[in-house]
Amino acid sequence: MAEEEQGALPPKGDFSAWYNELLWRAEIMDVRYPVKGLYVWYPFGFAMRRNVYDLLRALLDRDHQEALFPLLIPENEFAKEAEHIKGFEEEVYWVTHGGLTPLEVKLALRPTSECAIYPMYALWVRSHADLPLKIYQIVNTFRYETKHTRPLIRLREITSFKEAHTVHTTWEDAERQVEAAIALYREFYDRLCVPVIISRRPEWDKFPGADYTIAVDTVMPDGRTLQIGTVHHLGDHFSKTFQITYEDAGGEQKYTHQTCYGISERCIAALISMHGDDRGLILPPDPAPVQVVIIPITIGKRKEEVSAAAEGIGKELAASGFRVKIDTRDIRPGAKYYYWEMRGVPLRLEIGPRDLDARQVTAVTRLGEKSQIPRETLVDGVRDRLSSFSAALRERAEAHVRTHIGVSHTLDEVAAAVEHGVTLVSWCGNRECADLLEEKTRAAVLGTDVRSAYLVDAGGPCVACGKQGTTALVGRSY
Amino acid sequence: MAEEEQGALPPKGDFSAWYNELLWRAEIMDVRYPVKGLYVWYPFGFAMRRNVYDLLRALLDRDHQEALFPLLIPENEFAKEAEHIKGFEEEVYWVTHGGLTPLEVKLALRPTSECAIYPMYALWVRSHADLPLKIYQIVNTFRYETKHTRPLIRLREITSFKEAHTVHTTWEDAERQVEAAIALYREFYDRLCVPVIISRRPEWDKFPGADYTIAVDTVMPDGRTLQIGTVHHLGDHFSKTFQITYEDAGGEQKYTHQTCYGISERCIAALISMHGDDRGLILPPDPAPVQVVIIPITIGKRKEEVSAAAEGIGKELAASGFRVKIDTRDIRPGAKYYYWEMRGVPLRLEIGPRDLDARQVTAVTRLGEKSQIPRETLVDGVRDRLSSFSAALRERAEAHVRTHIGVSHTLDEVAAAVEHGVTLVSWCGNRECADLLEEKTRAAVLGTDVRSAYLVDAGGPCVACGKQGTTALVGRSY
Repeated sequence: MAEEEQGALPPKGDFSAWYNELLWRAEIMDVRYPVKGLYVWYPFGFAMRRNVYDLLRALLDRDHQEALFPLLIPENEFAKEAEHIKGFEEEVYWVTHGGLTPLEVKLALRPTSECAIYPMYALWVRSHADLPLKIYQIVNTFRYETKHTRPLIRLREITSFKEAHTVHTTWEDAERQVEAAIALYREFYDRLCVPVIISRRPEWDKFPGADYTIAVDTVMPDGRTLQIGTVHHLGDHFSKTFQITYEDAGGEQKYTHQTCYGISERCIAALISMHGDDRGLILPPDPAPVQVVIIPITIGKRKEEVSAAAEGIGKELAASGFRVKIDTRDIRPGAKYYYWEMRGVPLRLEIGPRDLDARQVTAVTRLGEKSQIPRETLVDGVRDRLSSFSAALRERAEAHVRTHIGVSHTLDEVAAAVEHGVTLVSWCGNRECADLLEEKTRAAVLGTDVRSAYLVDAGGPCVACGKQGTTALVGRSY
Repeated sequence: MAEEEQGALPPKGDFSAWYNELLWRAEIMDVRYPVKGLYVWYPFGFAMRRNVYDLLRALLDRDHQEALFPLLIPENEFAKEAEHIKGFEEEVYWVTHGGLTPLEVKLALRPTSECAIYPMYALWVRSHADLPLKIYQIVNTFRYETKHTRPLIRLREITSFKEAHTVHTTWEDAERQVEAAIALYREFYDRLCVPVIISRRPEWDKFPGADYTIAVDTVMPDGRTLQIGTVHHLGDHFSKTFQITYEDAGGEQKYTHQTCYGISERCIAALISMHGDDRGLILPPDPAPVQVVIIPITIGKRKEEVSAAAEGIGKELAASGFRVKIDTRDIRPGAKYYYWEMRGVPLRLEIGPRDLDARQVTAVTRLGEKSQIPRETLVDGVRDRLSSFSAALRERAEAHVRTHIGVSHTLDEVAAAVEHGVTLVSWCGNRECADLLEEKTRAAVLGTDVRSAYLVDAGGPCVACGKQGTTALVGRSY
């Protein structure tokens, strides 16, 4: 059965159905693994994931080092930081048996790695000369989610948490690292053409054991927010718990200050959801497993001539560093278009007898823009089109967020706004007002100190109590 | 305290002590993690690991696809293949609780991934046109080892099992894949300059559920063997268990035939152990995190001139694709030599005033070969020296194996030989004779159908019973 005969995707307007079906139609994830909340990466999805992670790795490698710490955390280490264990105790998986033998000490599958890493940092950090220490790891982490699970968004095995853990001499130096991490994450998401909104999470929503948490959110097609990165200032909480101290220049022992920050595979969920359309994935060139697909139009005669030309084009582009695929399958060109559109390939090159005669190739971007590229300037032509395709995608994504963010001055306005987007309000900072807002609108105060390329200031009195307020981001989130 | 003041490494002749101390002195692994059998990869060790895995990935990517399957396997899937579960039941870690709640179905941490992958293959494979299917993943796997654990060699968390799983129409096609996998592993180890001996494991030592197992062993410095890769022909055992069938060209449903093969982080243990010496690591250029270290000799005047020259050399080499480090630390050159020798850097370049005047740099390989490279032909000179360094390392490793493999015709000869190496014997194939051999010599029959670049034929009657025999590899192993 040809793929297009499986019927069209659900329209993207029906986001949840679209998302679920796209995952297998574009061969990203198979959701049929026999345990709830665990999924399988298909090779095509995995290739995309590799490219996305290589981007992030390259950014981190500028001034971090990659290391690797164990998955299993003994219960006694895990229990050391009171707030931290309290924050995680309901969602930790416990290993209790080795073979047929009960273990003496239960082992947690890391939900996050503070308690695996910081006992080692206590051994590694000796002097101010060892600081700052900036290490990251890319690992699988586990959460026993009791809520509705969803591939790439709410998982029981996060197959690749990209978590950095830094150690500093002072609180202020750690604060500078928080800002550096935010800048790094902005740069990463810019490469994916995914717009972000930065804000400071309310006290009750910060990371267990942190001084404060800065979150990176994006706005999904249905207007709900997705948290796609967090940066935590840990102060000296963990360094006091795990005795991470250093000798300062004057010979005095002092507690260190720390940060940690991480991105899960939700970055892939955002990438897919932000750009895709009713025909499937749309991928920016950086993460795309196939950047250019070449379709030889060999219907008539001159089949060999066309095939040879396609081959030549493929070689030339590959030699210039593009990820290229020539689709020589014995199926109709239309079926090939359908197939590669579903997989989000940024640029399709068609070459047929007429193109040969005109010494050109026909280029069609995944957004449907069609043009001819002279054969002699092929590489430059492809580079140009991919670059303007990126720009167009970025603009399109920004337009989406821009039209899904507003300002609300009453709870009724909030309730209306969060039906299809996020909104800024003025908020006094009290939990009672946030709770009232949530009760009336089924949306939450996501953060303050909002930084976005769009609106940043709501103005006016607190939307709930009318007292003086400052601007807060409100929305429904995944 | 300068590093060399920590005292010398134990001599490599005292292999166990040397290995354990080298791991932390060269910053490969920290063994102080508070759970037995779990270790931490330092950044330097991790960088080496990345290079090694990139080599293997490139080889696999030629005709395999990378994917990713979950860590957690439900007990019912795990129990499906009787031999398989029996082979692993004593060493599987079980997750029994999610948060405070007991799980309805216990979850195994994969000791190997057959039972996670094959239920999916049953869904993926439909027709002969889907075959062969060749997929690999690089994942953490777990074994509850009750024996003495040892970093990189006997672990409870194998942090990176590189496992491939292939599906074929016929037994013979699967057999061809076994041979292809062996060739691939040979090529991989050749890049690490680690010599291997291939053999077919005895029936009782094959992978649980396999038709047969081909093993890749190397000979460690103390003469014991280390299994550093295995290739299994699974026949149709698993396809019958998991119902992996395909429709052949005639429309008939048939069971598939499968193989799987894997390499753990023992490849790193072999790399370290084969080449290192009393002064530390020795790394071939391919896996080395730093291939060339530049030491500016800035003792006298002309400090700035020397520093600028070192800078220029570093840039030139980096631009040519070498992994280069300029050591500008304010410590004695001797301390720098010591530091980089411990970390196995293949080539050291020294540049001082005298070199400047002679328009040259002084090159010293990690095997101590000293020469001058004219400044104008720097890049070629470095490339040449790295290439002959590789060749010398390979030759040195082969000499080690050659002098640690012999032929024995009596059990007494076997007992003497396995004190310092491996030996070939003639063996009738009966388990009783293998057991007798083990009882008398504390060494095991490792395999038959021996393939090595050295001896392959023992000749003569069975070393234990005197009946007719064929050649078998015997040794003590890790």
